Amino acid sequence: MSLLVVGSVALDAIETPFGKVDRAIGGSATFFSCAARLLHPVQLVAVIGDDYPEEGLARLGRDGVDLAGLERAPGESFFWAGRYSFDFQDRETLETRLGVFAGFEPKVPEAFRDARYVFLGNIDPTLQLQVLDQVRSPTLVACDTMNFWIEGTRESLMRVLERTDVLLLNDAEARQLSGEWNVYKAARWIVRHGPRVVVVKQGEDGALLVEDGRIFAVPAYPLEELFDPTGAGDAFAGGFMGYLAHTDDVTPANLRRAMVYGAAMGSFAVERFSIERFEEISRDHVEARVGEIRALVDCDAGAGS
Amino acid sequence: MSLLVVGSVALDAIETPFGKVDRAIGGSATFFSCAARLLHPVQLVAVIGDDYPEEGLARLGRDGVDLAGLERAPGESFFWAGRYSFDFQDRETLETRLGVFAGFEPKVPEAFRDARYVFLGNIDPTLQLQVLDQVRSPTLVACDTMNFWIEGTRESLMRVLERTDVLLLNDAEARQLSGEWNVYKAARWIVRHGPRVVVVKQGEDGALLVEDGRIFAVPAYPLEELFDPTGAGDAFAGGFMGYLAHTDDVTPANLRRAMVYGAAMGSFAVERFSIERFEEISRDHVEARVGEIRALVDCDAGAGS
Repeated sequence: MSLLVVGSVALDAIETPFGKVDRAIGGSATFFSCAARLLHPVQLVAVIGDDYPEEGLARLGRDGVDLAGLERAPGESFFWAGRYSFDFQDRETLETRLGVFAGFEPKVPEAFRDARYVFLGNIDPTLQLQVLDQVRSPTLVACDTMNFWIEGTRESLMRVLERTDVLLLNDAEARQLSGEWNVYKAARWIVRHGPRVVVVKQGEDGALLVEDGRIFAVPAYPLEELFDPTGAGDAFAGGFMGYLAHTDDVTPANLRRAMVYGAAMGSFAVERFSIERFEEISRDHVEARVGEIRALVDCDAGAGS
Repeated sequence: MSLLVVGSVALDAIETPFGKVDRAIGGSATFFSCAARLLHPVQLVAVIGDDYPEEGLARLGRDGVDLAGLERAPGESFFWAGRYSFDFQDRETLETRLGVFAGFEPKVPEAFRDARYVFLGNIDPTLQLQVLDQVRSPTLVACDTMNFWIEGTRESLMRVLERTDVLLLNDAEARQLSGEWNVYKAARWIVRHGPRVVVVKQGEDGALLVEDGRIFAVPAYPLEELFDPTGAGDAFAGGFMGYLAHTDDVTPANLRRAMVYGAAMGSFAVERFSIERFEEISRDHVEARVGEIRALVDCDAGAGS
C-alpha cells in the first residue's frame, strides 16, 4: 500500500565524541525514507535548495524512493548544526537555517494523493495540514513533532492531532505537549486529543506504544557503541510505517510488530554518521535484528541473543 | 529450597511529593523479605536496636519470615532519612545513623547454614564476606551494593564479587564500579570480575539481565502514580530470589522468568510508603501483575493489557 512522507531533506553539521561531519545528508524525510524503503516503497514530498549535492540526490533516490514530490527551489537547503555531549545525554543546537524551507508550500503530486499511509515528519504543523488537505483518504496518518512547534505553533499542531491516528514523539515532548510529568498520563492526555495511538520514543530505553487502555513496550537494541543519534527517531518512524504499509494491517497486534521494526531501524541509524548504515544493510539485516529484539524480551527463551 | 537474606532492618524517615513518614519500617532485608515471602519462606539475618518497635517486629515476622537470625543489640536501630525531588528523579540523603549496625557481626544460625539461595543485601562488603564464610554450599549467591561501598571498600567488595553468582545494582552503580559509561560494557566488565550474571535495575525503565553473550530486558510495570521509591530495588531482589528459590532452577530461562517476578515486586513497593503494599497483597496479585508485565512485551498479543 502506498506510503507517503513529507518532511525535511537537509544538510547537517554534526559533532559527536567520535568525530565530526559537515554537510552530511540529513533531515526527517531522509532518515524516514532510508529506513522505510528497506520494507516498502516510499513517496517523498520535500524541498531542497540549489546547493543540495547531486551525490546526495543519488543517495536519497535509491530503489524504492520516488522523488517526484521533491521540489528544487533557489536558495539554500535546510541546514542544522548540532553537538552531542560526551555521554550523548545532551544535544546542543548550534545553528538552524531554514533556507528554502521558509517559503515551502508542499505540493503532493497527483500520483501520490491516494497514499494510504502518510507520515508527517517533524516540520511546521501548518505544512503538515497542507499535506493532509491534499491526500484523499489515507488508512493511517502518523505524525512527528518537536518542542519548537509545541511551544510556538500549538494551535496548528492541535489541529494536526485531530486528524492524526498515530503521534510519535519523545518523552520530553510528550510531557511538554500534555503538561503531565508521568509518561503514561502524558500519553493518555494525547489520546484524548486526537490520535488513537501514541508512540513514545525513549532512545536507549526503548519505546512505548500507548492506546486507550493498552500499553506495549519495545526495548532498545543493546548497543555497546552509539555513534551518532541524529535521525534515530525518524528511522524508527520509517521502520514502523514501512512495516504497516507493507503488511497493510493496522490491527493492535500488527502495530506491536511494527514497533519492533521501528526499534530495529532506530538502532541501525545510530551505528554510523548520517544515513551511512542504511546504505550497507538489506532487508535480511533488518529481519535478523528484529529477531534479536524479540529474543531480548522473550521470557521463556533460554538461548536468546 | 532454603532462602537466606542478610541486610539492614532499619527505620526510615522519608519525604516524597506526596507526604512524609517518620520511623517507617525499612531496610534492605525488610523489603527483600516482604516481597520474597509471597513466593517462598525466608530466613533473615540482621540486627536491630532496642528502640525497634514491637509492632515493627510483628509486621516483619509474618508468615514465611524466620527471624531466628535477627539479633537485638543495645543502642539505636539503623536510621536513614531521605527526601525525593518533585519528579522522583533525585534522592537526597538527609541523615544516616548506623546505630547498632556499626558493631554488627552477622551470626548465621546453625539451622540457616545450609541455605541454598543467599541474598547479600546492601551492607558493608566485609559483613557480606562474613556471611559467605558461614554458609556451607549455596546453589546461588546474589549480592547488592551501592556507591558508598564501591567508593570506600572497593577491595572487600571485589572479594565478595568473586564469590557471587548474581550482582544486582542500578545503572549509576554499574558505571561507577566498572568505569564504563555504556551499561552493556559495564555489565560485561562485571561479568569478567566474578558474577556470571548482572542484573541492572533501571527504575521506571525496567531492568536488564546480562550474562556472557546474552541479554534479557524486562520492562517496568507502567505506573501512573509513583508514591515512594524506597525499597523498590530490594523488593525486586526479593521477587527475583524468591522465585528462584521456590522453583529451585537456575537455568537461563528461569532467570528470565525470575526477572519478571522482580519487576512485579518492585512495582508493588513504590505504590505505598514503606512495606505497606506488601501487607495488602497475596500471591494471586503477584501472578496477575507478572501476567500483565509479560503482556506488555508480547509482540503478537492483540489484546494484552
